[in-house]
Order: sequence, then structure tokens, then C-alpha cells
Amino acid sequence: MQNQGFVYLNGKIIPAETAAISPYDVGLLRGYAVFDLLQTIGGVPFQFTEHITRLRASAEMLGLEVPATDDEIAEITVELLRLNGHTEATVRYVLTGGESPDGMHFDPATPTFLIITHELFEVPESSYKVGTKLLMREHRREVPEAKTTNYLTWLRNHHLLDAAGAIDLLYHADGLVSEAATASFYVVRNGRIHAPARGVLKGTIGGLVLELASSEYEVVLGDITVEEALSAEEAFITSSVRGVVPIVTIDDSTIGDGCVGPVTRRLMDICQDAMKRAD
Amino acid sequence: MQNQGFVYLNGKIIPAETAAISPYDVGLLRGYAVFDLLQTIGGVPFQFTEHITRLRASAEMLGLEVPATDDEIAEITVELLRLNGHTEATVRYVLTGGESPDGMHFDPATPTFLIITHELFEVPESSYKVGTKLLMREHRREVPEAKTTNYLTWLRNHHLLDAAGAIDLLYHADGLVSEAATASFYVVRNGRIHAPARGVLKGTIGGLVLELASSEYEVVLGDITVEEALSAEEAFITSSVRGVVPIVTIDDSTIGDGCVGPVTRRLMDICQDAMKRAD
Repeated sequence: MQNQGFVYLNGKIIPAETAAISPYDVGLLRGYAVFDLLQTIGGVPFQFTEHITRLRASAEMLGLEVPATDDEIAEITVELLRLNGHTEATVRYVLTGGESPDGMHFDPATPTFLIITHELFEVPESSYKVGTKLLMREHRREVPEAKTTNYLTWLRNHHLLDAAGAIDLLYHADGLVSEAATASFYVVRNGRIHAPARGVLKGTIGGLVLELASSEYEVVLGDITVEEALSAEEAFITSSVRGVVPIVTIDDSTIGDGCVGPVTRRLMDICQDAMKRAD
Repeated sequence: MQNQGFVYLNGKIIPAETAAISPYDVGLLRGYAVFDLLQTIGGVPFQFTEHITRLRASAEMLGLEVPATDDEIAEITVELLRLNGHTEATVRYVLTGGESPDGMHFDPATPTFLIITHELFEVPESSYKVGTKLLMREHRREVPEAKTTNYLTWLRNHHLLDAAGAIDLLYHADGLVSEAATASFYVVRNGRIHAPARGVLKGTIGGLVLELASSEYEVVLGDITVEEALSAEEAFITSSVRGVVPIVTIDDSTIGDGCVGPVTRRLMDICQDAMKRAD
């Protein structure tokens, strides 16, 4: 299994094989946990502050607090990356409510704080070149502004993604699209970039790309109906570990002319430039 | 903490303090897990077969399989109860997808199967005598027919329950009530017992009590609107560890005349008789 290398757990960097989460952890027994995930560029955490800031915000929505300063977390991250020696890594920060003697009560003062690293996975080059596909599922995340560990709907449908050659699920509810299961979702209509404003997790790389693009494109924050998504000129997703990925099919609907559109292309360039500057 | 006594983990009964859940467990990283919970009566698991059958059904909805036969689980449970020496216990069976090297893929053939016991907690006698309260929250569980470990909404609101003197949350969505966060929910209207038919977990003790009561009362399975719940003559919840508990207040609404009604009283007797017979 993955029990190689080192992890950080509650104050200490230890060999992964000795890292023990309690069977009474409320993150396990009750899914009461938040996390965040970043990637390294040239071995250096990209958008570190943005991710830790979002982790703190997620934690607060569950009444939890990250038990370390940004500087401490940065130091631990650097040391963990050095010990694990990835080429490029994703770093996962997980915070749970800690142990719960009765599976109900827990003390927010003694959370479980875990940091693990993975070798960065590669998105197939073709996904960027010719675009990829989303499958729609009706779902609204329970605390959408928080990055919680609840990925039931995504993992239950994961085998369908592979079978359909789709990269992710697109969630919708009450006639509105919100976000992909593991990425932010955007469409282009009349040359303007539309981003859902409510009930979504704030994207870190998505936020950066839109900010950089705002001098060239009008960005509209607001509701996007399913019909507006399916009849858009272009669609794309953004995620910290994948950057900007063009979407040319949603379920059986072709988006625009089925090719990667000019706005998405430009945003992919902007994203790559931003990541190169970090390198 | 709770790390006393023994737990069962993946084939072995071991001291709780040595029980280590992997930091890569998909139950922790992605909340991908189901569970079930029973109580003992006279030290003997009550409705054992019903609970394990429901655990298997929950597992199947997540593409998982309980890696032991009923007989094996019964044997482990008896041994665990003997070692832990509770007066009366709740037994918690937890099944996750197992380790996930990348926080995404896992092998259903190597799940994590955990059994832990707790001393049975007591519901205050007054809850049965004068009834208790529910707080309404808009929420629909993601896979409502499965008993998953996702209790985000419940735990986020737990402090409000205590402050309001309420025993549980009552979930509603699209104008319909469904279930309490940790119990089944029923109302009495025109002398008939109404149970929500869709989008709820099948109650084990609730099912037994309604079956035993069906010679005395008409039981109606169907949608219950929020208005119908609030204007009911009586309301009650059922759970494996609490039996039948009368509800006399929902948010600020008094149910019926605010006293424990005759139907609920009769069902409490039926429930107690069934539990006594098991003793």
C-alpha cells in the first residue's frame, strides 16, 4: 500500500507505516473533517497561503481550528516534501474533530491534523488538447463553501466516469449547475466568463486565473442554469492539481462546436504562465 | 480518551490503544464508509440480524461488501462484549472502502472493517415521561437509504440541540419531513400512524414496533409535509439505542396538546415489551 515515506500527524513527522488514526476519530466515525490540497511547482508549494487560508475557513465552518500557524505549516510541508522526495507532489492537509469517545461528542481543542503527500498525478495531455467530458449528477454539497471530506456521490459514480471517458461529475440542483466534484466549473457565453456565485467552494487556481483574465474578459458572477451551461459557447473546469481543463461534452450534449474554444485556450495560457512564474 | 478495552479491526480483536486506522483510509480522506449500531439487552445484541442485514445493504449501495459472515460477526461481537465488560453496550460496526493510495482509488476487496463497543448511554427518564423536542433543519441525506458515516449537519448543529433542550434534528426538504438525524420520525393523524416512505433509512426498532402495532393501528406509508407534521396529534422518534421517544415540540410548534399522546404511550409499551422479551 501507500504506507511509504513520511506523514505529519498531530505535531510530529513520522514514518507513514507508524501513523495511526484512532478508530474513535470523529473524522472516520462521522465524516467530520475538512481538508485542502495543493500542488508543488519545482518542488515548492503553489498558492500555499491561499490553500491554508481556505483550510482555516473550512475549519471554522465546522467549529474547528487549524492547530498551527502558517509559518509552522509551511516549515512542516517543506520538511515532509524533502523527506518524501517526490518529483512533483500534491500535499493534502486534513483536519478532523479528533477523538470522540461516544461517536457524538468531541473536543475541538484536540483535533486531528494530518498532512500527507502524494506524487502529482498527470492529466492526460489529450484532455487539454481536445477537451474532455463531464457527467451531470443532481447533488448539492452539504456545506458547499467548506471543503469537507464528504465525497460519497463522486466515489459512488467514479467507475461511471472511467467508463464514459469523463474527467469529473458536474453537480446541479434546482435547475442550476454549481461545481464539478473535484473542480470549479465555468462557462463562456457571449464572450463573457460566467462563474456560479452561490453554494460553491471558492477555487484557488480558478480565482487566480479569473483575476488575471479580468483585464481581457468580462467575468459575471451569478446563477448558471443547466440550459445555459449546455448551450454555452465554451465550458471549462479549474482545479489546483489540473489547472484549466476544457470541457467539450456534458453528458450527451456537445458544448459549442465540440472543440476547445478561444477563451478557454487563452485562460489555459494565462494559467500556465502563472505556474511558470512560480517555478 | 476512549482507547481502553478492545476493538475488532480487519480480522483481529486487539487492544484499542494499538488499533491503527491508516491515514490513507478512504473512510477518513473521503468519508466513504457505512456503519450500523445496535444495543445489547441483558448483554445480548438486540436485533442483531436486522442490523447486520442493514449494514450489508448500506455497504452494497456504496459498492462495498462486509468481509465476514453473520455467524463470524456474531462470534466476534460476543467475544468483544465479554472482553470489554460493559453493563449494557452499544456495538458499532464500521465499514470503509479501505486504503486509498491517491485519495481517489481504492480496492473494495480490501475494506476496513471495524467493530467498537461503547457503554450504553441513558436517555433522561423525563424525555419518555413528558416528551422532548426536535429542531428542524433543511437537509436531505446524500444516500438516504444507506447508513453512511456522514453526519456533518447533525454535528454542526449539536451545540444548538443542547442549548434548546432538543434531542435531535428533524430533516426536511422540498416541503416534506424525512427523518431525524439519528432516528426515524413518525406522526399520528386521525388516529393513524404515518411513516415517511421515501428517502429515509429503514428503522430497525421502528420497523419492529410498527409491525407489532399494526393489529391495533392503521399504518400509512407516504409523504408527510412539514405542515402535516406540525399539525399532527402526536409525533415520536424511534432509534435502536433509545426505543420510542415522544416528541411534543418541533422548533416553536407544540405537537397536539403538548403532552405524550395515547398512541405514542401504547407504542412505548409495545417497544418495552419487545425488549423485555429479548431479555
